[in-house]
Amino acid sequence: MTADHSLAADGRLRHLLSLDGLPAPILTALLERADALRGHARGGTALRRSFAGRTLCTLFFEASTRTRSSFQLAATRLGMDVLGFDASTSSTKKGETALDTLRTLEAMGVDVFVIRHADDGAVAALAAAAAPGTRVINAGDGRNAHPTQGLLDMLTLRRAKGPDFSRLTVVIAGDVKHSRVARSDLHALRALGCGEIRVCGPANLLPGPDVLQGCRVFADFDEAVAGADAVMMLRLQRERMEEGLVPSLEGYFRDYGLDARRLALAKPDAIVMHPGPMNRGVEIAGDVADGPQSRVLEQVGNGVAVRMAVIEALLGD
Amino acid sequence: MTADHSLAADGRLRHLLSLDGLPAPILTALLERADALRGHARGGTALRRSFAGRTLCTLFFEASTRTRSSFQLAATRLGMDVLGFDASTSSTKKGETALDTLRTLEAMGVDVFVIRHADDGAVAALAAAAAPGTRVINAGDGRNAHPTQGLLDMLTLRRAKGPDFSRLTVVIAGDVKHSRVARSDLHALRALGCGEIRVCGPANLLPGPDVLQGCRVFADFDEAVAGADAVMMLRLQRERMEEGLVPSLEGYFRDYGLDARRLALAKPDAIVMHPGPMNRGVEIAGDVADGPQSRVLEQVGNGVAVRMAVIEALLGD
Amino acid sequence: MTADHSLAADGRLRHLLSLDGLPAPILTALLERADALRGHARGGTALRRSFAGRTLCTLFFEASTRTRSSFQLAATRLGMDVLGFDASTSSTKKGETALDTLRTLEAMGVDVFVIRHADDGAVAALAAAAAPGTRVINAGDGRNAHPTQGLLDMLTLRRAKGPDFSRLTVVIAGDVKHSRVARSDLHALRALGCGEIRVCGPANLLPGPDVLQGCRVFADFDEAVAGADAVMMLRLQRERMEEGLVPSLEGYFRDYGLDARRLALAKPDAIVMHPGPMNRGVEIAGDVADGPQSRVLEQVGNGVAVRMAVIEALLGD
Repeated sequence: MTADHSLAADGRLRHLLSLDGLPAPILTALLERADALRGHARGGTALRRSFAGRTLCTLFFEASTRTRSSFQLAATRLGMDVLGFDASTSSTKKGETALDTLRTLEAMGVDVFVIRHADDGAVAALAAAAAPGTRVINAGDGRNAHPTQGLLDMLTLRRAKGPDFSRLTVVIAGDVKHSRVARSDLHALRALGCGEIRVCGPANLLPGPDVLQGCRVFADFDEAVAGADAVMMLRLQRERMEEGLVPSLEGYFRDYGLDARRLALAKPDAIVMHPGPMNRGVEIAGDVADGPQSRVLEQVGNGVAVRMAVIEALLGD
Repeated sequence: MTADHSLAADGRLRHLLSLDGLPAPILTALLERADALRGHARGGTALRRSFAGRTLCTLFFEASTRTRSSFQLAATRLGMDVLGFDASTSSTKKGETALDTLRTLEAMGVDVFVIRHADDGAVAALAAAAAPGTRVINAGDGRNAHPTQGLLDMLTLRRAKGPDFSRLTVVIAGDVKHSRVARSDLHALRALGCGEIRVCGPANLLPGPDVLQGCRVFADFDEAVAGADAVMMLRLQRERMEEGLVPSLEGYFRDYGLDARRLALAKPDAIVMHPGPMNRGVEIAGDVADGPQSRVLEQVGNGVAVRMAVIEALLGD
Repeated sequence: MTADHSLAADGRLRHLLSLDGLPAPILTALLERADALRGHARGGTALRRSFAGRTLCTLFFEASTRTRSSFQLAATRLGMDVLGFDASTSSTKKGETALDTLRTLEAMGVDVFVIRHADDGAVAALAAAAAPGTRVINAGDGRNAHPTQGLLDMLTLRRAKGPDFSRLTVVIAGDVKHSRVARSDLHALRALGCGEIRVCGPANLLPGPDVLQGCRVFADFDEAVAGADAVMMLRLQRERMEEGLVPSLEGYFRDYGLDARRLALAKPDAIVMHPGPMNRGVEIAGDVADGPQSRVLEQVGNGVAVRMAVIEALLGD
């Protein structure tokens, strides 16, 4: 799944399906616009006129309240009508294909789809079959991509460390194998020229070498954290693991949990990130999650701004 | 269930409960207004002022995401507040009667109810007990009626074939027995003076003679389709069938599925319709559903316009 | 759980967590404003500008469609954006704590939370941990409190009987033990100086003496009703009872149901109230629920106005 599918023939953004291959200038422009929108993230009279009468539909084939809510608020603050379509309890159960559901909603006048699906590549496949005027944002497909999460992570890094990523050492740690967030972060960090990307996790929770290209892989979390500028923790996705492969939570925290002792090995001004929802005491200690180096809640706020910027970019003239 | 319940004492539309007995002029006026609204179906500044401050509630005792979404968008584009009340997971579970739920929502200031219920006649019964100012739209009750679907089907036919239905041969095919859509279509086709109405389906999926009044009934689908102007397919509603009575899907498609060979028996400019969601390969072949004669997606778009026209008619002065 | 938590340091209302200890002037001001809002309860152009761009989130850890809908309409009519977050089917299932969910939504820009939770005190605990600018309204926590229901009940009483409660005899009857509504009503009646508060119910459905402070307790419902100005019935909450303790419904209605004969023992102009949803034939006879003395539907309408007044008070300058 390459980002070519996200771009129109003239090189402008048509969909946002993945950060894989997305040109750095487009990525940077989205981050700068999102940063400017942060102050107006609750909308304003002018913003709310932006796309009045346009409709955004959250089409979720896999449940998610957080991401759906973030997109809903972003669209509302741009003046859009929002339609929530829970495809896990709807006509898809009556035998309708995902594509027929999409086309039906297009015919009702939906302009922008925010789609989540359990299968890798499913969102890009829907986008490829959509009508020419339709815009699609991938809100997470299988293990493949979660591009707005990748963008909001980059915005958070950039606001803390500045726009030059070349001197940064960034750690991505935990259940990398099952994480579409990690994949989108890796694409973005490479595109923005991150100095050193470190990946750390138990061997059975690391992905293949194609995903890890250009990364330094660590088995020992202490070594991975040492001297880092940012530590991006991932949620242990027990629900995606086969039974018998779920690690013991105590052992996991001991080996791969971020606690205060470990964080002290990083640079003094290192920041801590987590896409949420957090398993406190599993991959992250409560005092680190709530501590002064944590950017977890700023990530959430940046998420609304990033999603506003993406919608603007897709719909703007 | 006659349409008398839909009309106020002065002959104007108060509710929309059924198309049964609805005077042709009212029906035609709704279709003409809906046709005019198609171009504005995403709403406009003026339209959005129409009913600002009025509230429409989708009160669904039976799940349906498609129809609910269509009404939600129609009401939003007329400037209304929309309240979604999923009665299948709410206070009705705590022992409240459907009528108490309706009255509670009336007391909160709901002006228009869009109601779906699994029982024949339940929506009309609720409308009969509603407060004088309340308007009720039947979004499907049991096998009885689905009047806005009937109207959108007529709009689709009319846009393809013109306002004179007297020369048309229209086929309704499939699981007619369980279909409230078919019943509403039949009422409308008769009211609009359709030249010939043909009904075709397996014997155990055909309704009684009261429903089929004035129709030509066919056992052979090829014969039914021959020379037709429009073929209206119905969804095989396996979920409404007793176990043991569900036909084999292969046999059903062979005998009652609309494929390209069969469609070629109709007039060259015949149109194909389906209320959705479609079971591809069961009642309709994928290439026919997506083919040039298909009006399936136009039906969906017409649905929003028809629902806007109905809401306007019920609330308008 | 005292109401101190509801008040800011300057004595103004910051949250609405309980009516326990809420100063009478604040209570009376809310009731007077709600009464004034009743005529505008569908919103108006000016009202709808009140809080445009502010966001209210209904954060329900326990399902409730009625209360949620009432708050949604109240906020919409004040021009707010409304986010429905069903915490019973969301990230809390992925191991997130309630507080992390709240903080995540705060970071998305939610200004006012309307929270329901199955545990006593859970809403106050969340409010205590919320950011300084956040406002919290308790929409029901365990058996503890349901303050907006208490307020709407007082508004209903006041509109029927005038602002002087000192001459009133009010009966609260039924499953008092499990009822947060009863607890909030009791706090409000005491604060407003109600002349006589009577409580009646089967011994095993009555709460402890701390709750019943200052009340006259009756075992015999006839005696409790005799000469009363208002009879407030409660829903028999069978879903909160341990198996084996659910009373027989016939016996319950005979001993503790409000029928026409019993109601005739009260003052001729006595009013009947019920928070809904009603179990007709269990705690209240259908003809009483629908009779001229019933204020059940006015309660519902007052609920929207009370919730508008509370939101105004929390957000107002």
